[in-house]
Amino acid sequence: MTTLLALYRRPDGGEEGYADFEKAYAGGHLPLIADVPGLRGLVVRRVRRRMMGDDDLVIATAMEFDDWDATKAALASEAMAAAGRNLAEIAPGLTTLLVLDDAPDLTPEAWR
Amino acid sequence: MTTLLALYRRPDGGEEGYADFEKAYAGGHLPLIADVPGLRGLVVRRVRRRMMGDDDLVIATAMEFDDWDATKAALASEAMAAAGRNLAEIAPGLTTLLVLDDAPDLTPEAWR
Repeated sequence: MTTLLALYRRPDGGEEGYADFEKAYAGGHLPLIADVPGLRGLVVRRVRRRMMGDDDLVIATAMEFDDWDATKAALASEAMAAAGRNLAEIAPGLTTLLVLDDAPDLTPEAWR
Repeated sequence: MTTLLALYRRPDGGEEGYADFEKAYAGGHLPLIADVPGLRGLVVRRVRRRMMGDDDLVIATAMEFDDWDATKAALASEAMAAAGRNLAEIAPGLTTLLVLDDAPDLTPEAWR
């Protein structure tokens, strides 16, 4: 599996600004993501609390693909381009987007 | 489910510094995490590529617990305290640690 992990920092505008972001994210952005070819799984999580670190992150979204080739195809798709344009509107400069590979060699024996 | 998401920034020291970190993380840190009470799942992933964002993140680890109460108990455990002390040695100031709640209300209809 290859995972796209999107991390969103808190937008300006206090509670109202955050509520507007969530609404735009769920109602406008995620339907675009659902159309991305090869998407095998989608998990959206809210940040309840930050225990370590400086960034005020509010949402973490994992998008799963079969492998890196499928992820590259997804990143190059029109649906992903539309999602990117949408993100530039609703959360400009607030997104971290990472491509992650499973690392079973970094798992302790008990969890392999 | 409640998730602890740990994000690690790249340590100093180039390739050797990173190799040392991975070795210490897998050989020393993860066995401590495996002992944390209530841990239901552990997935370690390497960052293959950063598409958006400024932080040079190298590893993202998800630790799953039944719920927030179980996560609080885990965070208060001796095993987690030992893991925290270990982290201060092997990756000082490089860790972001977030408590995440599933947000099924933020999932598009097609993925519910």
